[in-house]
Amino acid sequence: MNRRMVLYVVGTVIKIEAALMLLPLITALIYKESCSSAILVSIGIALVTGFAMTLIFKPGSKVIYAKEGFVIVSLAWIVMSLIGALPFYISKEIPSFIDAFFETASGFTTTGASILTDVEAMSKGLLFWRSFTHWVGGMGVLVFVMAVIPSVSDRSIHILRAEAPGPVVGKIVPKMKQTARILYIIYIALTFIEFVFLFAGGMPLYDSIIHAVGTAGTGGFGIKADSLGSYSPYIQWVITVFMLLFGVNFNLYYFMLIRKFRSAIRNEELMTYGVIVLFSIVTICVNITPLYETVSESLRHAAFQVAAIISTTGFATTDFNLWPGYSKTLILLLMFIGGCAGSTAGGFKISRIVLLFKNIKRELQKLLHPRAVATIRLDGKRVDEKTISSLGAYLAIYALFMCVVVFLLGFDKFDLETNISVAASCVNNIGPGLGAAGPASSYALYSPFSKVILSFTMLLGRLEIFPLILTFSPSTWVKK
Amino acid sequence: MNRRMVLYVVGTVIKIEAALMLLPLITALIYKESCSSAILVSIGIALVTGFAMTLIFKPGSKVIYAKEGFVIVSLAWIVMSLIGALPFYISKEIPSFIDAFFETASGFTTTGASILTDVEAMSKGLLFWRSFTHWVGGMGVLVFVMAVIPSVSDRSIHILRAEAPGPVVGKIVPKMKQTARILYIIYIALTFIEFVFLFAGGMPLYDSIIHAVGTAGTGGFGIKADSLGSYSPYIQWVITVFMLLFGVNFNLYYFMLIRKFRSAIRNEELMTYGVIVLFSIVTICVNITPLYETVSESLRHAAFQVAAIISTTGFATTDFNLWPGYSKTLILLLMFIGGCAGSTAGGFKISRIVLLFKNIKRELQKLLHPRAVATIRLDGKRVDEKTISSLGAYLAIYALFMCVVVFLLGFDKFDLETNISVAASCVNNIGPGLGAAGPASSYALYSPFSKVILSFTMLLGRLEIFPLILTFSPSTWVKK
Repeated sequence: MNRRMVLYVVGTVIKIEAALMLLPLITALIYKESCSSAILVSIGIALVTGFAMTLIFKPGSKVIYAKEGFVIVSLAWIVMSLIGALPFYISKEIPSFIDAFFETASGFTTTGASILTDVEAMSKGLLFWRSFTHWVGGMGVLVFVMAVIPSVSDRSIHILRAEAPGPVVGKIVPKMKQTARILYIIYIALTFIEFVFLFAGGMPLYDSIIHAVGTAGTGGFGIKADSLGSYSPYIQWVITVFMLLFGVNFNLYYFMLIRKFRSAIRNEELMTYGVIVLFSIVTICVNITPLYETVSESLRHAAFQVAAIISTTGFATTDFNLWPGYSKTLILLLMFIGGCAGSTAGGFKISRIVLLFKNIKRELQKLLHPRAVATIRLDGKRVDEKTISSLGAYLAIYALFMCVVVFLLGFDKFDLETNISVAASCVNNIGPGLGAAGPASSYALYSPFSKVILSFTMLLGRLEIFPLILTFSPSTWVKK
Repeated sequence: MNRRMVLYVVGTVIKIEAALMLLPLITALIYKESCSSAILVSIGIALVTGFAMTLIFKPGSKVIYAKEGFVIVSLAWIVMSLIGALPFYISKEIPSFIDAFFETASGFTTTGASILTDVEAMSKGLLFWRSFTHWVGGMGVLVFVMAVIPSVSDRSIHILRAEAPGPVVGKIVPKMKQTARILYIIYIALTFIEFVFLFAGGMPLYDSIIHAVGTAGTGGFGIKADSLGSYSPYIQWVITVFMLLFGVNFNLYYFMLIRKFRSAIRNEELMTYGVIVLFSIVTICVNITPLYETVSESLRHAAFQVAAIISTTGFATTDFNLWPGYSKTLILLLMFIGGCAGSTAGGFKISRIVLLFKNIKRELQKLLHPRAVATIRLDGKRVDEKTISSLGAYLAIYALFMCVVVFLLGFDKFDLETNISVAASCVNNIGPGLGAAGPASSYALYSPFSKVILSFTMLLGRLEIFPLILTFSPSTWVKK
């Protein structure tokens, strides 16, 4: 284990976080809010820590392997959440540090689950920081490090692998660094386009920025008690469309930029995503029509909520907790699906589900014709058997992880519907659950123990479980 | 597809079912109940159908392959449930045929979920038949066919594979037929020993038989409104022990008979089973102590309910629906585990879970050392990679199946806690669920649509999903 290099990179991430906190500082200064001093102190702490770490742990060798990649990513995300919680805690706007850590981990992991009971009482500066963590976490902080830091070697594929979601990580272009840059350029451009649509539609400047970054990261923190409920139908439709767009693999946008339209459109994952979204919107719309005045209203609510859940954003325009059984059940099942691999969305990922289906189909064929050899193909390309076998292990650990979270929440006071949906919501980085943790409620009433568990659940979910487990397993740290 | 052979074997199964119905007929005659005529008519229908099928479809070739194995088992179980429902329906003790089919499928699959709202109003003859279906289904009807029918070739391994639960099916002795006989001898002996313990403990003769066969099949149909609640603590402890014993792989009993004690005791699946059972009993006992007068009482209820759920029997001595969150959550999670492979228990099976854990561990090692080659071992023996890959596919289809059942139950009027637990209970052949379908309630209030879905859910669960899907997929029937 190249410990110096691990700590050096984590130190670099902290310095970058300090720089990112300048944006909420500016916001607080513009609105002349008292939280600015808390943000300033937090920046100071981050800078001192970051510089101390990069100076003390200047690595002799920059060589890293898979092991270092997992540890770097895990530690970076935990430390980011700890330091990112400081402005909330120091300003006393969130008086409990566990709550502040929960809120920040929820932000960076783009979950959007909140312990705030009165979001409208928060300062604009801190609300900006809260939503901005979504944007930072959405594409991945270490992807950002690779995009902007000059001296990154191609070894850093190990970092990208550990941070990027989905079953397979490909480079778009041969150079790692270029890949990271292209991803960030697409990300910034899409965020800006959404901002323009929102602002042009009459949303205030501040609100437009907040919601553009919150959608881009598929996060879900809003600034009103009813989330998006009180904005105009136009705004709600714009956000519906962009939530869905940010749930698509960014590689496809790159294919479209370089005019490989066929590769972009004939993508199996994208088609499956489209079919699931359409089916859910139509059937939920029919199911909830009696609850709303017009069909267009129920269509809008159905489309918004489906997009919010499958893209794992978690904004809301209405309380789906009050919907009939069919719609509530479908919402819960959509929580487990998630967006496409290589998007900012969380969840199990459509491509994994497509591969699981193909593996089930192959297994059925094998049962009928035990000696036949069949390969699995995705987008016409043969999928490695190792990927299939890893996928089985991932499904197993994912299911086990869900069970463990539900088990640990069992110590708290809520019913099983609430706990199962909250586990699903946090594992998949969505935000709201059902029952006592629905879109109209918050996570405030969970015990501190449950909040710590859920904070790590969100981090484990965002990093797809394996990196954090490896970081905390002793065998990773034993010298050979 | 050797269709004649398929229908011939199904016909044979129907004839055997006719013979088995003689037992409830005798019971009804002893108690001079009017249901005896309904049973007699049912036997007549079964005999005519069975003989007609075996005469018409006398096969030219007795050769069968995997495909025929799956189809035989699937059709046999569906037809058995349809014909087994006749006595309930003809006697009008269960006036709706869908209800009668549900109850019979629940019986043969050893689920024990009931639509009866007043079980004590039923005749003794039909209650005997209801519980006896557990015993028949527990070890498997086709295993029975192989044990008793003279002309069974060793090709019938395909039938055993399709019917027997668990990831790997081994023969105990080289001859298939001998294996089936040994299994049935152990099964009959254990059932008889339990009967002796119950009868000697002061349980009435009729009740002792009912509960011995119900425990042996890990079924769960009782004859009182409060299941086992009103029997003495001694009786409850006897049943606790036997529920656990019937959840153990029968091969281990054979090892003990031939004095291979070490193989029997040092079995990884058995040890895992023991650890899970002990952990659950102790923690639930602590959790529920405030609800009961003495610690011995809460220990008894904890042990009984844990044994009833993990062995997928589903008897009850108390309503766990009223237990605190921790215990209810653990009960729900235990539902997914199930007993050991090669036992009469349902569920996902302990050995599959052990293998999944080993696969997760190997995956973690692979992430750290991508080039290392690691094999998975169970009880010291190397597990084939094909088994691991099939296990991944099985977990996938199992999870998918759970989701589909929850989705379809979403059309009904119950809450998610009820529906999720009912899906878990039926997929894993347990019996009671939580919420509106808890141990103190029944499935009576579900719609006919849901009841049909749940009947097939129980059959799919008992046969471990693949056989029924293959039977209903067109490619199985296409001639090549």
